[in-house]
Amino acid sequence: MLQRIQPETLDVIRTRTSVRDYATTPIDDTLFEQMITSLLAAPTASNAQAWQFVAVRNPGRVEIVRAFSPGIIGIPPLIMVACIDHRRTKRAPGEASEKLADTAKLCVAMAVENLLLAAHALGLGGCPVGSFRGPVVQKLLNLPAEIEPVLVVPIGHPAQTPVPSKRRESSEVINFEDWRPDTATA
Amino acid sequence: MLQRIQPETLDVIRTRTSVRDYATTPIDDTLFEQMITSLLAAPTASNAQAWQFVAVRNPGRVEIVRAFSPGIIGIPPLIMVACIDHRRTKRAPGEASEKLADTAKLCVAMAVENLLLAAHALGLGGCPVGSFRGPVVQKLLNLPAEIEPVLVVPIGHPAQTPVPSKRRESSEVINFEDWRPDTATA
Repeated sequence: MLQRIQPETLDVIRTRTSVRDYATTPIDDTLFEQMITSLLAAPTASNAQAWQFVAVRNPGRVEIVRAFSPGIIGIPPLIMVACIDHRRTKRAPGEASEKLADTAKLCVAMAVENLLLAAHALGLGGCPVGSFRGPVVQKLLNLPAEIEPVLVVPIGHPAQTPVPSKRRESSEVINFEDWRPDTATA
Repeated sequence: MLQRIQPETLDVIRTRTSVRDYATTPIDDTLFEQMITSLLAAPTASNAQAWQFVAVRNPGRVEIVRAFSPGIIGIPPLIMVACIDHRRTKRAPGEASEKLADTAKLCVAMAVENLLLAAHALGLGGCPVGSFRGPVVQKLLNLPAEIEPVLVVPIGHPAQTPVPSKRRESSEVINFEDWRPDTATA
């Protein structure tokens, strides 16, 4: 439990935005470790923790992963590759469960959001990238077949002040009690 | 951008845990609106915002949704039903894109994590629930076929102090540069 209500966290959540250009400054280990702690505190269905992460920081390797990830724009000092661990999404030996794998994917996404929020809270920035060549990245990182990369996440010090993207009005996406009763036919 | 680094946000992220039992106290509107702002600030691929949310607060309706959601334990004052909006995951009229729908699902999960973190920051709690009868919930809420519920999220004031679940050592899930080089065969 928190010692006290922390409304300032809402500012962190509200002002996070995608950062796609990075300064060349590396990420120091203290910041890195704080991001890892946040990453691993995400919800995980049945506490299965059916996830694996690869932190790519070696500049040569960053460049190679980036080459196969069109969604990564600038050159980041860190790419976190977020994966489902399918070894932990099976009900019984040999029996794969589509539903459990699907749930694991949601947990990986929530972990990535924790990572991005922690980065932002620490003055860093990044964005979740789904546009990458999965099989190539898998091979480049020597990932076994059961470790499936879902998102690659470039993170670094922002090269310039990022501008939050405009969102639709909340009335367009938040419904009360059921589907848009104002427009529903009786 | 943030005015200053906010390391206390890391405490919010680190101490969030699933809350499954709720006090009967309702959630006041100020807290509710702050949670909505956080929810909608999540990353969204290509800013598609291919999501819709239904806030269920009417006690009778909460009870009905809960009846078809075995993953919801206590009776919460709010259930947020988080959905993919498939009308926004098509490349061209009539042409569905599996990849875009898959990406939208990740965005919905990240939005739900924002919601849960905001709840925790405000002294509330909840948990993401994948165990619910999708087609029934869809019908109960009058959701059109293109609005697919992904997670139902009960939220309320915690009935007791929640205990964070134990996680594996970070060395078991964080790899450096590539797959577990310490155990890889040369």
